Amino acid sequence: MASLDESVRALLEQPNYAVVSTTNADGSIHSVVVWVDVEDGHIALNSAEGRVWPTNLERDPRVTVVVYPPSNPYDYVEIRGRADATHEGADEQIDRLAKKYLGQDTYPYRRPSEQRVKFIVDPQRVRHAKR
Amino acid sequence: MASLDESVRALLEQPNYAVVSTTNADGSIHSVVVWVDVEDGHIALNSAEGRVWPTNLERDPRVTVVVYPPSNPYDYVEIRGRADATHEGADEQIDRLAKKYLGQDTYPYRRPSEQRVKFIVDPQRVRHAKR
Repeated sequence: MASLDESVRALLEQPNYAVVSTTNADGSIHSVVVWVDVEDGHIALNSAEGRVWPTNLERDPRVTVVVYPPSNPYDYVEIRGRADATHEGADEQIDRLAKKYLGQDTYPYRRPSEQRVKFIVDPQRVRHAKR
Repeated sequence: MASLDESVRALLEQPNYAVVSTTNADGSIHSVVVWVDVEDGHIALNSAEGRVWPTNLERDPRVTVVVYPPSNPYDYVEIRGRADATHEGADEQIDRLAKKYLGQDTYPYRRPSEQRVKFIVDPQRVRHAKR
């Protein structure tokens, strides 16, 4: 596992958005913009069961995450790793993300039927581009 | 080919950055942040020969492009298509991109040894997420 240096950690801890890319069944690439956080040196993501990218990760856990600050998109980090899915703590995590990105204590878009899922990604390869 | 509606075209015509994802030889995903433009209803990208993502596109032309405005990352567009590479017009294109993103008439980072390459991507699938 690669470690996240101070500058990369700062990028992830600030409320910057992540572009998360996974591989579809036909080999094409699916990309979404989502919230992101860092937990114990790992990338932490959250989604709901049944959506495209969690389903892709069940088949192929390889994921690539790009994060950049709006003020300087060329100061971006590309992180590749494998995603481990868990339901444990997923509801608490989406509330923490709502706090980080919206300043709200509870995630406001929750649907009664959805089951949240948390992904922990070990950063196997970290590239911090700077211009 | 899917057509780009007015709102998607506006996202691409403004100086927003693109996250371009291609498939590495081992099946993992490579993502970069780059400049982007729209030409005749196609996505237009530019790079230099020998870099990772142009090399990936020679092997597998499938590419996924995400663009979002810094003011509202959840108003993003995900475009999938196939990239056609050409050297014709590539130098002029990188100068136009320098004008768009830097306000400069000439691309200032050109290296004497590099050969620029232009990619035209037909938008086969366009998804405009909005929250």
